[in-house]
Amino acid sequence: MPRYRLTVEYDGTPYVGWQRQDNGPSVQGEIERAAEAVGNGEVTLFGAGRTDTGVHALAQVAHFDTERQWGPSKLRDALNAKLRDTGIAIIEVAEVGEDFHCRFSATSRSYLYRILNRRPPPALEIGRVWWVKSPLDTDAMHEAAQRLVGHHDFTTFRSTHCQSRTAMKTLDELRVSRLGEHVEIFARSRSFLHNQVRSMAGTLVEVGLGRWSADDVTRALEARDRTACGPVAPAVGLYLVAVGYD
Amino acid sequence: MPRYRLTVEYDGTPYVGWQRQDNGPSVQGEIERAAEAVGNGEVTLFGAGRTDTGVHALAQVAHFDTERQWGPSKLRDALNAKLRDTGIAIIEVAEVGEDFHCRFSATSRSYLYRILNRRPPPALEIGRVWWVKSPLDTDAMHEAAQRLVGHHDFTTFRSTHCQSRTAMKTLDELRVSRLGEHVEIFARSRSFLHNQVRSMAGTLVEVGLGRWSADDVTRALEARDRTACGPVAPAVGLYLVAVGYD
Repeated sequence: MPRYRLTVEYDGTPYVGWQRQDNGPSVQGEIERAAEAVGNGEVTLFGAGRTDTGVHALAQVAHFDTERQWGPSKLRDALNAKLRDTGIAIIEVAEVGEDFHCRFSATSRSYLYRILNRRPPPALEIGRVWWVKSPLDTDAMHEAAQRLVGHHDFTTFRSTHCQSRTAMKTLDELRVSRLGEHVEIFARSRSFLHNQVRSMAGTLVEVGLGRWSADDVTRALEARDRTACGPVAPAVGLYLVAVGYD
Repeated sequence: MPRYRLTVEYDGTPYVGWQRQDNGPSVQGEIERAAEAVGNGEVTLFGAGRTDTGVHALAQVAHFDTERQWGPSKLRDALNAKLRDTGIAIIEVAEVGEDFHCRFSATSRSYLYRILNRRPPPALEIGRVWWVKSPLDTDAMHEAAQRLVGHHDFTTFRSTHCQSRTAMKTLDELRVSRLGEHVEIFARSRSFLHNQVRSMAGTLVEVGLGRWSADDVTRALEARDRTACGPVAPAVGLYLVAVGYD
């Protein structure tokens, strides 16, 4: 049975998140509906990253199996025709082997937080950036971020609802940079705990505002205690930008 | 009586355009309402460029007179508080002399067309880009664009509703560039005729698609005939990016 890998861009604003849920429309559900509508029978779609409500994606990776044989670009165009006006677009389709699993084969996930750092609110970027009014010291943020890079117990930086068996994770990269009024936080890891990126970003913004020092971040990490975390950043401004495979 | 210059960013999607009109909300009308609501009496706002419905601005320039004396950043924050959720933000306020007129003192206007040039439709950039599916030859577009730079009669490239006394204009710059899937058309002139940027952009896209040659563009310009123009580009994707003063 053919298996198709999808690369997906979406605006997370109108969705409860990637995953199908009872309380509203999901990205997974929309794509399943589209895949069924173009004649693939009943479709179960897997995703590499379970993005929260309001989180965007530039290149989420998903896959599904179908009885039907498709030319990859034909399947992409057919899905996009059904996804019109949903804020979801299939960027690329490839046929892959049965040994490929978008979630279990993934060796890295990369997320980007986009912050608009200026006193006036966003106009054109409403829903696309986290608006932080007060000036952020991005050098201090980047330096403090390095305290989190490496193999650690991230209990402090995960949601109490996180279902991961262990809080031990290796954070490969956490970079903070500024381009004019825009501040970006880039994070890469094999996998992240629930709310880990938002928890780290919110904590780093405290550093940028001068309320926390880099040593405070180290102490929070070492506390292994959720209550030691800074405020969790809002979902708006967060993008799943890449999923890596070997 | 103090005069205040405003630099304004806006999402043009929900508006009939910059200018107050009977058929729907305008950017000018929204800002006038906000300026009156914060206690400036009856306000008449002038704008440097009359953007069409759906056209965005990164830095429109406007001004108004008021009896009231304001600290510039206080006025900016007060206006932004009243403009919440309108897709309009006041980026900067400055007090200027009576000899400053945002429209008549302006020595240049710069517009940017953002095109998403890929087969899959936009998801995150819906309403922010003009989606052109077929591959564009941007080198050919840039070369053809140079045929329009300089002092010309732009009758071919102006709307039949254009109220300008003359079609003679000097186009200072018209550049086409590509960054990955994004193609940008940048245009700068002291002033533009009605629909001139959209008419030039639509014509250049015909060149990019291989339907028109640079010589065809020259012939269209020399025809001085509106019917010789290529298809007018849609408003979506067009941004007023700067207004220059000496």
